[in-house]
Amino acid sequence: MASGISRRALLAGGATLPVAGGLTRDGASTVTPAKPTAMHTTGPAATHTEPTAVSARAVEPFDGAHQAGIATEPQAHAVFLGLDLRPGSDKEAIVRLLQLLTDDARRLTQGRPALADTEPELAADPARLTITFGFGPGLFASAGVKSPVAALPAFSIDRLDRRWSGGDLLVQVCADDPVTVAHALRMVVKDARSFARVRWTQRGFRRSAHAHSPGTTQRNLMGQLDGTVNPADLDRAVWISEGPEWLRGGTTLVLRRIRMNLETWDAADRVAREFTIGRRLDTGAPLTGRAERDEPDFSRLNRLGFPVIPEYAHIRRARVNDPGQRILRRPYNYDEGVAADGSSDSGLIFVSYQADIGRQFIPVQRRLAEGDLLNEWITPVGSAVFAVPPGCAPGGWIGDRLLA
Amino acid sequence: MASGISRRALLAGGATLPVAGGLTRDGASTVTPAKPTAMHTTGPAATHTEPTAVSARAVEPFDGAHQAGIATEPQAHAVFLGLDLRPGSDKEAIVRLLQLLTDDARRLTQGRPALADTEPELAADPARLTITFGFGPGLFASAGVKSPVAALPAFSIDRLDRRWSGGDLLVQVCADDPVTVAHALRMVVKDARSFARVRWTQRGFRRSAHAHSPGTTQRNLMGQLDGTVNPADLDRAVWISEGPEWLRGGTTLVLRRIRMNLETWDAADRVAREFTIGRRLDTGAPLTGRAERDEPDFSRLNRLGFPVIPEYAHIRRARVNDPGQRILRRPYNYDEGVAADGSSDSGLIFVSYQADIGRQFIPVQRRLAEGDLLNEWITPVGSAVFAVPPGCAPGGWIGDRLLA
Repeated sequence: MASGISRRALLAGGATLPVAGGLTRDGASTVTPAKPTAMHTTGPAATHTEPTAVSARAVEPFDGAHQAGIATEPQAHAVFLGLDLRPGSDKEAIVRLLQLLTDDARRLTQGRPALADTEPELAADPARLTITFGFGPGLFASAGVKSPVAALPAFSIDRLDRRWSGGDLLVQVCADDPVTVAHALRMVVKDARSFARVRWTQRGFRRSAHAHSPGTTQRNLMGQLDGTVNPADLDRAVWISEGPEWLRGGTTLVLRRIRMNLETWDAADRVAREFTIGRRLDTGAPLTGRAERDEPDFSRLNRLGFPVIPEYAHIRRARVNDPGQRILRRPYNYDEGVAADGSSDSGLIFVSYQADIGRQFIPVQRRLAEGDLLNEWITPVGSAVFAVPPGCAPGGWIGDRLLA
Repeated sequence: MASGISRRALLAGGATLPVAGGLTRDGASTVTPAKPTAMHTTGPAATHTEPTAVSARAVEPFDGAHQAGIATEPQAHAVFLGLDLRPGSDKEAIVRLLQLLTDDARRLTQGRPALADTEPELAADPARLTITFGFGPGLFASAGVKSPVAALPAFSIDRLDRRWSGGDLLVQVCADDPVTVAHALRMVVKDARSFARVRWTQRGFRRSAHAHSPGTTQRNLMGQLDGTVNPADLDRAVWISEGPEWLRGGTTLVLRRIRMNLETWDAADRVAREFTIGRRLDTGAPLTGRAERDEPDFSRLNRLGFPVIPEYAHIRRARVNDPGQRILRRPYNYDEGVAADGSSDSGLIFVSYQADIGRQFIPVQRRLAEGDLLNEWITPVGSAVFAVPPGCAPGGWIGDRLLA
């Protein structure tokens, strides 16, 4: 199980998957095991012709070279939990915490109750549950280890709120069933309680996986296809292969909470929106192309001699030409409430994984902060970074190569 | 289309359903159209052997004798929107509001964008979207019509918060996809904005429909099977057949926000919990039986001469012997946040439909308030009542028989 790709291949072909199949739209049934290829390959934009039947009992492996929940086909529901270690926590306390939470994650993701699970019946349906751990700078400080990650530099567009930022330990909980997520979150929080305090929780959702073919790009609440360009080669772009031995096979995670001003976005017409993004809203095709996965032609000019994809269009500013340097985006929508006047607190929990934040994430974010037409409608209100250790062997625990 | 039953039968057999089927656990595919019977028939407790494949394109009919979203097999996600009419709203304003929102609901539930939909792409996947309207006492007052519903009497256990209570107009939005719910909510709120202010929104979730056989009882966050005893005969128990002509074919809705104290619940052992409820936690069987749907034997005594199902067990206090007088429960879980100390704001959005609140709901609620062991762990913090008009004909609008 050397990569997320083979993890998926194993799952698709293995005996642990109780149900894998779908029905074509005309009602004829077809068994359609997930293809043994990476989810993020570039292919034609998928349509809804073959929804995947998702079973409540479907299981994602926990043990492996990489943590699950990164290359995993995104589940419909996520909660991101930011924990702060209690003052005075030392390496021994961190080890105990990680052993405890790893044990919870290993059991719950496989559809077994956690130790002393108070609602064991709620553990029976993992629904592709993954629980992924990330270490923030504060955890390394407490453990007396040099941190491989540091808070992002300040960007001019940021309006960061402390209650959505930072954190010593990230626990990312994803599943296709919201009840599964609620139960797993509760077990993790209870077991962490003696060691850490909850700094924040961020709940997100995407189009249900069962509603779409694997690899279909999700739409965010602005209506855009979000996540079209993801790296194909995770071994280069995502998994760390150099630096400290304990982090090899791991990655880094950037979480940015991005509020959308849907009020003013809705007031903009479609031409302005497509101009802003550089893509068609309906197909997701670049303004110079016809299909979502067409390569944008950034040099093409219109009749007046201006670029068809504007200089400050989002896709031009976000562009990374070397596929090996692309970040893996796995975003979720959030929609928290509606004020009396009808305005909503909605946006995107932007989550990216990359081997090197400084080389891959920051240059893009800097270009976007300096000039992206989309900044008119979006505001980063939270920011956090974590080192994501590799997966562990059966009987191991997340972080053991660093802290054991 | 005289009842929710035939509505479902029509859907199961009709050409509007793009995908209907499931896969058995061993991988053999079977097409399993929804049975042309009511969802709430008493049958053996369903297991997870035949998850239903749910398509993002699946459609619930909008026009009909009854509003959808009541007899409809519960979708995975719901948001309940409580609106207050702007001061001075008269009958004409209410009519315009209802015409507008009916038009939105008719389009969106059928997978078409609302008029002037700013994110039309998000309307393409209705995922069994239903939008259901209820009229609160304040709407009737503004329209100059005698209200058929009134706020519930105060119960001793209530700790009601105004921000979860009351409301002139309820809009219940349910779908199997959270993105669909977010988009429909936004369109409704935007179109209502000139006429009404948002009083509250309550978001809830259940086990995903695709993960369970139709009719499977959901578990709430306490781990209990919740909603085992529902009426079989909706024509008697739910749909109004007497009183004002305009309300016939309609019903009434009681919404109670019930906070769960999971901290102390988790501290109770399983014997105490099962004693409290009167059912086994694992199977949902009554303490006197072996399967979820077994009839409880309230007269059976244990060796010591005490009732096996205690006098103040929840199922004894909630019992309604006449099936025609039972309320139709369609509850959702809520899980809003986690405090720094790990305690959660979780509970149940209890929603019931019944032909007569005074005759069906209040006696049960009174018995529960007077003595239900479960009260130790639950607190009603919100309460609202609505009259739910019947469905409307193509071209009609919800409430037209009252206000046209």
